[in-house]
Amino acid sequence: MTGRIQLRHQDGIAFVTLSHPGKLNAMSRAMWRDLKAVFEKLQAGDARCVVVQGEGGNFCAGGDIAEYPEFRFSEASLRNFHEHGVWGGLQAMLNCDVPLVAQIDGVCMGAGLEIAACCDVRVAGTSARFGAPIAKLGFPMAPREAQLLLRTAGELTARELLLQAVVLDAATMAQRGFLNSAVADSQVASTALLSAQRITGLAPQAARQNKQTLRALNQPKAADTALPDAYRYAASAEHQEGINAFLNKRQPVF
Amino acid sequence: MTGRIQLRHQDGIAFVTLSHPGKLNAMSRAMWRDLKAVFEKLQAGDARCVVVQGEGGNFCAGGDIAEYPEFRFSEASLRNFHEHGVWGGLQAMLNCDVPLVAQIDGVCMGAGLEIAACCDVRVAGTSARFGAPIAKLGFPMAPREAQLLLRTAGELTARELLLQAVVLDAATMAQRGFLNSAVADSQVASTALLSAQRITGLAPQAARQNKQTLRALNQPKAADTALPDAYRYAASAEHQEGINAFLNKRQPVF
Amino acid sequence: MTGRIQLRHQDGIAFVTLSHPGKLNAMSRAMWRDLKAVFEKLQAGDARCVVVQGEGGNFCAGGDIAEYPEFRFSEASLRNFHEHGVWGGLQAMLNCDVPLVAQIDGVCMGAGLEIAACCDVRVAGTSARFGAPIAKLGFPMAPREAQLLLRTAGELTARELLLQAVVLDAATMAQRGFLNSAVADSQVASTALLSAQRITGLAPQAARQNKQTLRALNQPKAADTALPDAYRYAASAEHQEGINAFLNKRQPVF
Repeated sequence: MTGRIQLRHQDGIAFVTLSHPGKLNAMSRAMWRDLKAVFEKLQAGDARCVVVQGEGGNFCAGGDIAEYPEFRFSEASLRNFHEHGVWGGLQAMLNCDVPLVAQIDGVCMGAGLEIAACCDVRVAGTSARFGAPIAKLGFPMAPREAQLLLRTAGELTARELLLQAVVLDAATMAQRGFLNSAVADSQVASTALLSAQRITGLAPQAARQNKQTLRALNQPKAADTALPDAYRYAASAEHQEGINAFLNKRQPVF
Repeated sequence: MTGRIQLRHQDGIAFVTLSHPGKLNAMSRAMWRDLKAVFEKLQAGDARCVVVQGEGGNFCAGGDIAEYPEFRFSEASLRNFHEHGVWGGLQAMLNCDVPLVAQIDGVCMGAGLEIAACCDVRVAGTSARFGAPIAKLGFPMAPREAQLLLRTAGELTARELLLQAVVLDAATMAQRGFLNSAVADSQVASTALLSAQRITGLAPQAARQNKQTLRALNQPKAADTALPDAYRYAASAEHQEGINAFLNKRQPVF
Repeated sequence: MTGRIQLRHQDGIAFVTLSHPGKLNAMSRAMWRDLKAVFEKLQAGDARCVVVQGEGGNFCAGGDIAEYPEFRFSEASLRNFHEHGVWGGLQAMLNCDVPLVAQIDGVCMGAGLEIAACCDVRVAGTSARFGAPIAKLGFPMAPREAQLLLRTAGELTARELLLQAVVLDAATMAQRGFLNSAVADSQVASTALLSAQRITGLAPQAARQNKQTLRALNQPKAADTALPDAYRYAASAEHQEGINAFLNKRQPVF
């Protein structure tokens, strides 16, 4: 069992559920592939709105670190993971013209934060927690993912999350402009559903064209995110120490 | 009577008033032409500051929808309306080197939001309302106008306004960074005037050069906003349904 | 005595102190040269974090205006001051891959605001004050500096500070997304130190690479900030009036 992405449809709304029981829905490589397939299907379909949610009270805790030793310490496989695996999934979300509503309960970290960042509307519960504490794992954020975080969370928050590895609460993320609203935990699902229902009553082609226009306006130049040395750290002592320490449940020494 | 743009001068301050009685100052094509002419005149003149306001307790409700059937359902005339009519007026505002203060009472929707977005300082009353609910009218935002909204309201708010067709209050728009301040309704005019008076006491050429510099830094590449298919929706069923439903005072069915 | 930049190291943290006694740490030309040298040294060194602070309860009041008549009224020397003196110091800060924490007490104006804008994390006391009131001195902001302000303070705040010459408090600057936190004045130093200590425990190469990535993503095109007429105002009556009035402790007449 390496987790999966569930898809169901109801009343013109598609529900995409991140599901990795016992791992707070951490994204495995299989889940990134599923995410890509699911959003390519949604783009070709006729859903009027998509709600993206996590199973069991949490959105997504990040990547599935148990898999990391298998591929992160070689530059080629590390690059392939970020540029094709992770970005394949995120790009499929960004390429989807159907409006996406993120329903954020519990933890929303790393990969989860990036998945939320690909949505158009973001609703979270007051006890939700946000972060990208990969500096504790000894590695930097991949360029395209950093560009996504910069664009959606803003520069102050991107630097705070990456350089200080802090975890921010929903009120702060709303104040910083990442969340449309922070509501009582018990109201997250109904608030997200209300947003989705509102969207399904509006002109669907206008929505698709608005998303296309905003995407064209935001398009980074290819050169911006193609940093040639981005994955040279693969075999570095720091990277290995961060991940090994985590897997051995000890503090890393950098 | 299709509305007009009034201009008066007092103590080095120019007052530009959007005026379309009985229509909450909705912008007709004639008013867009007037707006262009007024701001070209202001750019060539010696006013030290411009206050932009609406007549009779509202800023501007949007476009004058009664005119829409005349030109919106043909791609050529639709493109001409947005790229020359609307953008002619907005570009004249953006090209004006004199500082512009928006004094926002009541509704500030669609065209009104865009006019406010061209100002340098934005003051609103607590009961002011902001939106761009064109998804109810069955059409997307034109690219240049979307770029303007993105830059001034931020991506979260731009997507919320366009994809959900929500109306946001002044407190939210201040929190989102669109308004410099939200004040008691009775204080909007005096707050805007105080801002303008403050500006008239400062160095006028420095202000003009600061605006030129910020404009150069913000300049979108031509390609960014020239989306070839932007107006292909002109004759679409969705577009016609949205506008016809509005004019017939019924709910659209998309 | 024209002020200096002090540097000391403790427990992996470098402390950079702006020091110009009796002038609220206003930046003289000598201090800009020192700032460049200090940050080039830090970039080549092994500090894990840098705290940037001002001496004696204030961050920095701006430029040292007493020096201005010596060089500001000739276009060549004015250009040299901004493009090489000021920007030399700021660019060295922006080029530094070590995380920078701004500890902001008291006044943070003009040059001080720009120095703070080059930091990654910004903590201020509730009584701190922020501004760039150069419109009172009769001159506009240099293009690269305006680009920096636009990127870090946002467009609304950049226009408010430059066109209205207002002074904003820490709560407003936190709400506008310029400050990570506004804390009690007595807690500024300890909050900044805690941030720095937190950073020193995290992966140092990941931090450096994150800063390189974000810098690459933010890189303005050269053309964007090379405005040929940017310093033509050097000998203008307005510029001379602004600076002379300040030095003679009278109100300028523009």
